[in-house]
Parts: sequence; structure tokens; C-alpha cells
Amino acid sequence: MSLGSPLPVAVLGATGSVGQRFVSLLDKHPWFKVVALAASDRSEGKPYAQACRWILSEPMPVWAREMTLLPCTPQAMPEVRIVFSALPSEQAKTLEPEFAAAGFAVCSNASSYRAESDVPLLLPEVNAGHIHLVRHQRLARGWSGCIVTNPNCTSTGLTVTLKALDGAFGVRRAFVVSLQALSGAGYPGVPSLDILDNIIPNINGEEEKVEWEPRKMLGHLNEDSITLSDIQISAHTNRVAVLDGHTVCASVELATPALVEEAVRVLRAYQAPEIARALPSTPNPVIIVREEADRPQPRLDRLTGGGMTTVVGRVRPDPLLTLKFVVLSHNTIRGAAGGSIYNAELLVSEGLL
Amino acid sequence: MSLGSPLPVAVLGATGSVGQRFVSLLDKHPWFKVVALAASDRSEGKPYAQACRWILSEPMPVWAREMTLLPCTPQAMPEVRIVFSALPSEQAKTLEPEFAAAGFAVCSNASSYRAESDVPLLLPEVNAGHIHLVRHQRLARGWSGCIVTNPNCTSTGLTVTLKALDGAFGVRRAFVVSLQALSGAGYPGVPSLDILDNIIPNINGEEEKVEWEPRKMLGHLNEDSITLSDIQISAHTNRVAVLDGHTVCASVELATPALVEEAVRVLRAYQAPEIARALPSTPNPVIIVREEADRPQPRLDRLTGGGMTTVVGRVRPDPLLTLKFVVLSHNTIRGAAGGSIYNAELLVSEGLL
Amino acid sequence: MSLGSPLPVAVLGATGSVGQRFVSLLDKHPWFKVVALAASDRSEGKPYAQACRWILSEPMPVWAREMTLLPCTPQAMPEVRIVFSALPSEQAKTLEPEFAAAGFAVCSNASSYRAESDVPLLLPEVNAGHIHLVRHQRLARGWSGCIVTNPNCTSTGLTVTLKALDGAFGVRRAFVVSLQALSGAGYPGVPSLDILDNIIPNINGEEEKVEWEPRKMLGHLNEDSITLSDIQISAHTNRVAVLDGHTVCASVELATPALVEEAVRVLRAYQAPEIARALPSTPNPVIIVREEADRPQPRLDRLTGGGMTTVVGRVRPDPLLTLKFVVLSHNTIRGAAGGSIYNAELLVSEGLL
Amino acid sequence: MSLGSPLPVAVLGATGSVGQRFVSLLDKHPWFKVVALAASDRSEGKPYAQACRWILSEPMPVWAREMTLLPCTPQAMPEVRIVFSALPSEQAKTLEPEFAAAGFAVCSNASSYRAESDVPLLLPEVNAGHIHLVRHQRLARGWSGCIVTNPNCTSTGLTVTLKALDGAFGVRRAFVVSLQALSGAGYPGVPSLDILDNIIPNINGEEEKVEWEPRKMLGHLNEDSITLSDIQISAHTNRVAVLDGHTVCASVELATPALVEEAVRVLRAYQAPEIARALPSTPNPVIIVREEADRPQPRLDRLTGGGMTTVVGRVRPDPLLTLKFVVLSHNTIRGAAGGSIYNAELLVSEGLL
Repeated sequence: MSLGSPLPVAVLGATGSVGQRFVSLLDKHPWFKVVALAASDRSEGKPYAQACRWILSEPMPVWAREMTLLPCTPQAMPEVRIVFSALPSEQAKTLEPEFAAAGFAVCSNASSYRAESDVPLLLPEVNAGHIHLVRHQRLARGWSGCIVTNPNCTSTGLTVTLKALDGAFGVRRAFVVSLQALSGAGYPGVPSLDILDNIIPNINGEEEKVEWEPRKMLGHLNEDSITLSDIQISAHTNRVAVLDGHTVCASVELATPALVEEAVRVLRAYQAPEIARALPSTPNPVIIVREEADRPQPRLDRLTGGGMTTVVGRVRPDPLLTLKFVVLSHNTIRGAAGGSIYNAELLVSEGLL
Repeated sequence: MSLGSPLPVAVLGATGSVGQRFVSLLDKHPWFKVVALAASDRSEGKPYAQACRWILSEPMPVWAREMTLLPCTPQAMPEVRIVFSALPSEQAKTLEPEFAAAGFAVCSNASSYRAESDVPLLLPEVNAGHIHLVRHQRLARGWSGCIVTNPNCTSTGLTVTLKALDGAFGVRRAFVVSLQALSGAGYPGVPSLDILDNIIPNINGEEEKVEWEPRKMLGHLNEDSITLSDIQISAHTNRVAVLDGHTVCASVELATPALVEEAVRVLRAYQAPEIARALPSTPNPVIIVREEADRPQPRLDRLTGGGMTTVVGRVRPDPLLTLKFVVLSHNTIRGAAGGSIYNAELLVSEGLL
Repeated sequence: MSLGSPLPVAVLGATGSVGQRFVSLLDKHPWFKVVALAASDRSEGKPYAQACRWILSEPMPVWAREMTLLPCTPQAMPEVRIVFSALPSEQAKTLEPEFAAAGFAVCSNASSYRAESDVPLLLPEVNAGHIHLVRHQRLARGWSGCIVTNPNCTSTGLTVTLKALDGAFGVRRAFVVSLQALSGAGYPGVPSLDILDNIIPNINGEEEKVEWEPRKMLGHLNEDSITLSDIQISAHTNRVAVLDGHTVCASVELATPALVEEAVRVLRAYQAPEIARALPSTPNPVIIVREEADRPQPRLDRLTGGGMTTVVGRVRPDPLLTLKFVVLSHNTIRGAAGGSIYNAELLVSEGLL
Repeated sequence: MSLGSPLPVAVLGATGSVGQRFVSLLDKHPWFKVVALAASDRSEGKPYAQACRWILSEPMPVWAREMTLLPCTPQAMPEVRIVFSALPSEQAKTLEPEFAAAGFAVCSNASSYRAESDVPLLLPEVNAGHIHLVRHQRLARGWSGCIVTNPNCTSTGLTVTLKALDGAFGVRRAFVVSLQALSGAGYPGVPSLDILDNIIPNINGEEEKVEWEPRKMLGHLNEDSITLSDIQISAHTNRVAVLDGHTVCASVELATPALVEEAVRVLRAYQAPEIARALPSTPNPVIIVREEADRPQPRLDRLTGGGMTTVVGRVRPDPLLTLKFVVLSHNTIRGAAGGSIYNAELLVSEGLL
């Protein structure tokens, strides 16, 4: 698929850590062109380079440096078709519906609307078909635009892996423990005095999300809602001294017993649903399984497939359930900005814009 | 209890990271006096301060600085009664029986003999009574001395917590995921290039130990062996960028359902068995339960009770089993050198020297 | 010297990182008893344990836990004689004179009044005599109390070292580059995303302080002011991923050439001025010189002498000036809270309360 | 310039940290094709992917994975024209002359021959002309090949900066203090227990190199040797918890006083000598000067210009000499493997192969 001319898009909350990832990933995107960057009142009117404390290793794209920060209102960016939202939940709650009502497609990384019955919670390589829930959403809410969400960064790699196993063997239960990167907390986020020579064994509200969001994504699309999967998940979430890349240790119970080699074969063969298979951001492959005894590791593996591939390792029998393994996913690429962009591509390719 | 004059003791493998902890913890011990430090051939004959790259924040005790390193042989230290072994497993395998045969009480931190049916695997606050297995050990092996072991550092805090819960409610199954400190790998141990901005999702041979050792310690002492507990454990072990203090995330299934408050009450009320309750190293309290949402944390909590107390936090319901919680234990104090010293104190107080 | 009953003292700004150090160091102080803790409006009225996010490894003293936080006003704590100020500079500027006017001795860690000609800038082991400037301060300002300050944490160890060398050989010039700990920036301070796998080659306003403050402390006390020393200093300051302990690399030019051994002898022999030699916080020794090629190191050496001793190492010839060396000092103990307490002890012992 | 077909090259010491950088940087090099990888006896005969513990974030190039490791001998790789040496100094001492004698051009990162009067010590953007010393080297030693070296990684960015200033104003003296990355110590290199929450204020033999190597590179080429520059340098070297990127704080005395703006203009305008200006690895620009108060920072700036550009910041007046500034350079790219490759390109373009 190729578009005649690039679609004009905007980033809301462009100065934060996820906002910066949007700006970085949208640089040279084949379909989208950033024409507006918006941020909080405090930064409005300033050039992006001045208002934003850039924290990525990749340099800020040149086109972004002089772009003037706009207010987060539909009126400020009439030419835009898609807005990528890196807003804090509070603001997203109020602002995203305003944009959707005004005809914008909102691809949101915020958690505010993930649980709404008519809002798709999407990982295109898992549940691309759920995108069509936006038809019902528009009817029900009278919006010409829409809101499409991506899950919490810790749910991301886990759900991709569970999906592959669920399709082949059925997944009944999962115990998961995360070791999450600092960038997941935004900027300034975690004070260095709290994490150097330390871990923090809790992340507010995260365990509830990890126990619930995969059930929606692995669920069944009805005409106007999703029937949740009855997979049961128990989650512990931890913050560790890693810059990017969330690691999850998982033990799962399968409905049909599977040998390690069978599971590895299934994971490696996993493909995105047909409609999500050839988009610019489709991870290729969707899942990589490492053989080494000590992989995946965040620093070495987080950029696999440009940060969009889910990396699995240490697949082995579990003495209580069926299998144990380790999943790694880049939290601000696949788990945040990259995921929203992938969702936007799906909206476009499914003619839902 | 008070001894007339201090018992002469030695440290084998005194220059390594656990060896250094022995030297540090035995400084000013009320019952024991270090009269010999032994190390590998390479260091033999050198003053301790010269051969040892001291890595603890506490300064090296003055009496140790000029002590000449001896070879690791019984002949080199005839006056010694107890040897504390911080030897690598390979060397421990060969050398510890030589010392035991020669009449020494070997309090070992090595894994070599933990699984032997006639060797006590001890956490005195959990299974002090198992110490009497040494009577059978002496008969069976014809030793005038003995070998007594302490468990792997990750099993330590976990087993203390499971014991308290097991006594009150019965524990059937446990999922545990560790976030382990660097000092657990010894010195030089983990290269900095491997762990900065990273985690390593595997520790060689550790998961097997964590899945088995608690079963022996929670087991029943027969005349000449231990019947293993039938608790089932599934373990994932990880290395993180923390200097000291192993954190374990655990989900457990109890035989008798228990509310969070009941479990907390039981953990707080837990006491060591009578014979292990008033020794110099008895942790006081055995277990502390923190109320904060983000504790225990290794840097803030590892020195609780001088590093001998097990710190538990985040006790909450588990959606699949019964309860979830986090356990922290100092890996080179409670989980290594301090544990061996506690074992030695029990040997003395039980008249088994 | 012994006091009949302990002097009642207070800590202003008690919940911050330096405030916490005050609380911790004043626990069991032989002369002082904390009777009041004060903090910003937001925390006022709450128990200390609730308002304060405690970040030290040592547990919060039990007596402090339930103490109700007072407002930072003289009226709130009439019984107090000495207030230790860990206030931010802005607040210190306004509040410290109010306390001094109301008769309190203010021992301040803030920078607001360090440069005033009638305010002593004190390291008692360097310039204890300067304390008598408070007599002039009281006359000039009509205060019954007083303000006494301690220097910036980076100047501390450097000035102690320069003083010893200056007395013996004369110091003309010094190049100094600091590698400063995170706790020097307070809490929350430096975001972890800024410092993991990184250094920050600047600390706002710090270089000016390090280039000027030593000149005042090494200066000459006149009746009503200090004549600055004409030592010239060039400073670069850096933030590194260390929790506590500031390291300074220094190259100095001496007026009288000195061999390395002579300089080491002088540093080791250095003693505090007579009047500051037997106070509870007097570092003993004032300076330690390490012989190892790779010391001092912050993690291993910062607690030398309870964190009050200045640790010097790598004394060697400088190819351009006279000598090069490395200085380490604990920034929140000797360089902040411990320094203010030492100053207060000197006030008491000199009868200036 | 374009070559008909790629030149066959080899990497000696290919499994270490610098060896890995060679493999990574030579992937897709326009002129060179790696046809041989060699390593120590222990690894010989194994596939590269199996023998090498890959520690870079970029994945190992596919062509390297199955390449069989050869012994480090000229006989093992007859078709090779250039060998890149990442050998330890000891081995380099013996092996590099064997290769040079056998007709290979040895582009070495080792320190063994840097100080030899007939061996060029090269940063092409500084002293490209020195390459012609190899003509004399061949005559003097009777070699058909040659040895060309690049400096120590800490000297690299410093020398580039000094060269630019020296050309415009003359540099008389420099005080420099380094904060060096862990990768500079190779793998396994620095133990994590030594550097977490710590710095190490010494790097063996490094200060001597930093005080001498710039003098050779800034020196004058005679027919058969280099007259050293009479710039005087005093260096302190430190190891910090940074993965890649050496930072240097420098204070310099200029012969002609210069304002900050003049110096910045000169640094920005600096270009490599004509013959080194259009090679594949020529940094573009050679030097970047940042305006921000807190840059350069290793994590954010080390990959500027693909890791080949020298990044300078905080140019400001020095109270004792003329100017102060901070220099950052990627130690394993510009300061090691990338530098050797740049040297090889110069050899080729000057027709010296």
C-alpha cells in the first residue's frame, strides 16, 4: 500500500518521554508527516527544541526543532487527521473525546479509555480485527473521529506471547513478574536516589492493568463489544535500574500440554493477522525466540526489529504449570509510541480514517 | 549462655566476598575468636590485607590485617574448633570432609553437601532441630567432626516466610521470582558491562536450588534423614544491579485460606524454635512486615536486624492462589556468612561440638 | 566537656535529604536533643514518619517517627536554643534572620549567608577561630542569636586538604575537578533517566562556590571581617552515579616545593585548631592518606571516621605545578549536616550560645 | 575515490570488546571486506558466534556468525591486505611485527608501538601527514608491510580539540581530568561490585599516555621521526559507571589570549587536513560545540557523527589559565576501532598499501 501524499498528524504531549519517542519514530515515516506538536500551557508558543528536555540518544529530528508548540485543542490544528496522544491520563480523559468528536482519529497511549467497552485496545499483531469496534464507537457516541488505544507497556510483549500460545494450545493461567525500565515512568520519573543500588517492588496501578488488559486483547469481538478471554493472570510489577526495555518472567498453564520444542516452534511461526501483516510498523518477525541461557536482556535485545519485535527466551518446563519463559519488549517503542503508530497504520489500511 | 573463653575458629576462602563477610561479622563475636584465615595457594603466606581486595564498606578489622594466610588444610590450624567455609563448591567438595574427619565442625556456605541425606541444611529460626542429624552423620561417616550447611541465599528469606505460613495455614505451592544482588555472584563476579542498564534473566543452577532446598528445610527430621516437605515451588531467578540484598516476589497457595491480616499477624508473631531463640545471631524479630506500598527495598531494608531479619511487604490477595508478597533478605549476611555463624552457635549451644 | 542536660535543638527543613541526615546524626548526640522538627506548609501538622520519604539506609530514629512537624517560625519552638537549617536557599534567606533576631543560634547548611562579611563560614578543623566573628555579627545586626554557616559540600574536603598544605608549604593555585554524588542534589534531585549510563558535566552555581569559599575559610580573621586568602582556584564540577561521597581531583602549586613524602607526612600530622580538637564531632584523624593506587573510592571510604574524616590518596608529583592528589569527603555528613552540628558544638564550647 | 573491488581485511583479537566494534563498524564498509577473524588459541577453530560473548546493542552482523576463528598468524590469512589489531599489548608486541614483516598493513589499536620513533601515531583529522613516516619505517625495518597506530581513547577527543586551538592560538599547557567509560577496560573488565555506586580514581598507565601521546600527534614530522610538541599536560584519569564515551574536563593556557566566542568559532571551523577530508570515516563535522549548560553527556552525545565526531561544550574562561571546556569522544568508536579504520582508509588513499 502506498499513499499519494503523507497524512498530516500531530503529537499531543510532545515534550514528555513518550512524546519524544513519537517525534523520533515519526521522523521519515512513509505515510505520516508531523505538522503539529502540542503540549501543556507552560510550553505553548515556544519552539520545541527550547521547551523540550530531549532525553533520547538519537538526536532530535531537525524539522522538529523550530516547530512552535501549540495548545492541545482541535481548533489549533485543523489540517491534522490523526493525533497521537502521549497525554497524562487526567488530561487524556478530557481532551481525547474533544478531538474524537471534532473528527480526529486519536491513537492514544493513555490508559483513560482502554477499559471502555466500545474502545479498541489494540496490538495489531494480536487482535487487529478489534479495530472495527470503532464503527460501533462512532455510532454510539456520535463522533466523526474515534479513539483507539494501545495497552500498558508491560502487557504488550506478554500478550503477544500469550496470543501465540493460546492459539495453538489454549492458555488457562499465567503468573507474571515484571522488571520494568525507568522510561516507563516518564520524565523526570524515578529519582536516581530511589533506584541506584536498588529495586522498587511496586508500580502504582500496574498490576491491575497487567491482570486485565490481556484478557480484553485476547477476547472475542462481538458487534458492539469484546467478550473478555477467561485467561487468569497474577502479576507482580517491579522497577529496576534499566533505561529501556521491560522484562517479564512468566509461568503459564496450557489447556493442551506442550513440549518446549513445540512451544518454541509455535512462537517462531506466529504471524500477525492478515490485515496487520504488511504495515510499515509490522514487527518482522513478530516474535524471536533466543536459545542462549541468559537472554533476552534489555540492553542487548530491546532494539530487535527496531524495537517492535517481542523477544522470548528461556522456554522451559514449569514444575507447577506447563511452561516458564522470559519475555522482553521495548516499552517506549512497541509498548508505547511505536504501538500507537502501528494502530494508526491499521486504521488507515482498514479505511477507517 | 556464656562461654568461659572464646572458641578458636577459622575462615576458609577468606579473601572472597563471602569470606570477607565472615571476617567482618566475626569481629567482636561474643563466642568466637578468629585465629586462622586460609585461602588458595596463590595467596598463602601473604598478610590478609595484602592478598585480599576488600570490597565491604565497613573497614577490614585491624586484627585481620596482618594475619598470614594459611593453606586450607586441617594440619595448618590444629587449635581451631570450628571452620567457616566460604570455599567454591569444587574445593568444598574435597576439603570439607577432610576437616570433618579431622574433628573440625565445618559450618559451610558451599552447596556441595546440602543435598546429602545426613547433612543438616539449616536455618535455625526455621528448623533448628535438624542440627541433631549430625549425630547420625558422625556414626555413618566415622567423623569426629561434622559438616553443617546453610542454604542458597535466595532460599533463605523465602524459606523463613514459608515456614511461618506453613505452620499456621499449610503451604501447598509457591511461584517465586528473584531479583538477586551482585554480591551473590562473588568477586569479581558479574562484569559491569553485563549489568549496567541491564538485567540478566538467569543464574546458573540457582532455580533448581530454590525449588528444592526449602523442601528439605521444611521437611520432617527422622532418626537418620529428612522427609522432604511436599511443597511445590516454581522459580525464576534474575540478576539485577543491586550490591546486596535479594528480593523475591512470591505467590503462594495455602491449604487453609487466610486473609491478609491473618497472614501478617502470623508472620509478625513468628518465633524461632525454642533452642534457636536466644543465640547471639538470632534475628530479632525473625520477620518484619512493612506496611508501605513500595517496601521492602534492598538498599533501604537489607540491614534490618543487622542483616539477619527477613523483611516482608506487600502482602495481598493473589488472584490465582491465596496470597502474594515480597521478601527481602541480605544475601551475604543472613543468606551466607551470618547464616553459617548462626549455625555454629546452635552447634555449640546444643553441645554438638 | 560535659553539659548538665542536653540542649534543645530543632531541624528546619527536616524532611529533605539533608534534613534526614540531621535527624539521623542527632540521634544519641551527647549534647543535643531534638525537640522540634519543622518543614514546609505542605507537611506541617503531620507526623514526621508520614510526611517524610526516608531515603537513608539507617532506619529513622524511633523518637522522630511520631514527632509532629511544626511550621518554620521562631514562635513555634520557643524552648529551642539551636536550629539546624536544611532549608532551600530561598527560604533560608528570609527565615534564618528571623530566627537569629529572635535569639536562636542558626547553624545553617544553606548558601544564602556564606558570603556575608560578618557571617562565619566554618570548618572547625580549618578555621575554628572564625567563629568569633559572631560577636561582631550580633553588634552589627542587633541580633541576640546568630547565623553560622558551613561551606558547600565540594569545598569541604578540598579546603581541609589545602589548609594542611598551606600551613606547611603555602598553596598558590589549585585546579580541581569534582565527581559529585547524587545526594548533593537533594531529593528528588537528579532523575534516574539523566544519570544512569551517564555523567552530567555541570552543577549549577557550584564552580563559583568552589572557587571562592575556600578563600574565605583559609583567610585571616580581623575584628569585623575576614581577609580572603589569595589562593587561586579553577573548578570543574560534575555529577556522577554515586549515592554519597564527593571525589575531587586536585593539582596544586605550592610556594615551597615539597616532596610527596613530605606532603603526606604533613597531611597525616594535621590537627584541628586547639579549640576544635576535642568536640564530639571532631574528625579523628582529620585527614587519612591512603597508599593504594586506586583509593579513595566513595563507596569504600566515605564512612571513614563516621563520615567526618577527609580521605586523601594518590599523592604524586604534578608535571605542571607541584602535586596532584584525590580527595574524598562525605557530602551529606562532613559536607552538610555533620558539619553544621560540628559548628554548633564549637559555638557551645566557645560560650557563644 | 572508489575502489574496484573491496580490499580483504582481517580482525585480530576479534572476540574482545574492541574486536567486536571492528566487526560491527566494518559491516557494510564501502572499501573493506572482512575475510578473516582471528583470536586466541582458546577460541581458534570455533564459529565466531559461539566463541564470542557479544556485548554490543547492535546485533552481530550475519556474515560474522559462522566465520571460523583463525589463529593470529600471517600464514593463516594469505589473501588479507590489512589487519586490524585489537590484541592485548603483550601479544601485539610480538605479533604485529610478524604481520608487518610479512607484508600486511597493521592498523593497531594497541599501545605497544605508539612510542616508537618510526611508527605513526595517527588521528587523520589532526596529523594525517604523519602517515608518511611509514616510508621510513619500511626502510629502517626492512618490512614490506607496516604498523600504524591510533592513540589511547582518552587522548583522542582531547588531541582533536587541542589541535584546533593550537593552530589558531597556540596551546602551552593543559590540565585534564577524565571520566572514562567501562568499555575502555575491555571485557570482562571492571567488576560490577567495584563500580556500582562508586568511581575508581585511577586507571593503570593511562595518565602517562594522556600526558605524552598528544605531544607526538601535535608534533612536527621530519624525514625519519617526529619532533614532539612542547605542550605540557597534567592528567588525572577516573573510571565511572558509563558504558561508552569518555568525558574530559580541560583547562588550557593559550599563547595568544582568546575570547570564548573566538575559540568556539575556531573549533567549529576546524577541518581535517586536505588528504584526510573525504575519507569514508572522516567525521563530519570534526568537532561539534554544544551551547547547553550541561552538555556534552556521554549517553546523549557519544553517537554524534556516528561516534566519530568530537563533542565539546561548556567553553568558558578559566580563572587561572585561558579557557575551560568539556570534551566527549566515543572511546570504542573514534577512540579505538573507528580510529584504526580511519587510519587504514588514509593508508589506502595515500597509496601506501
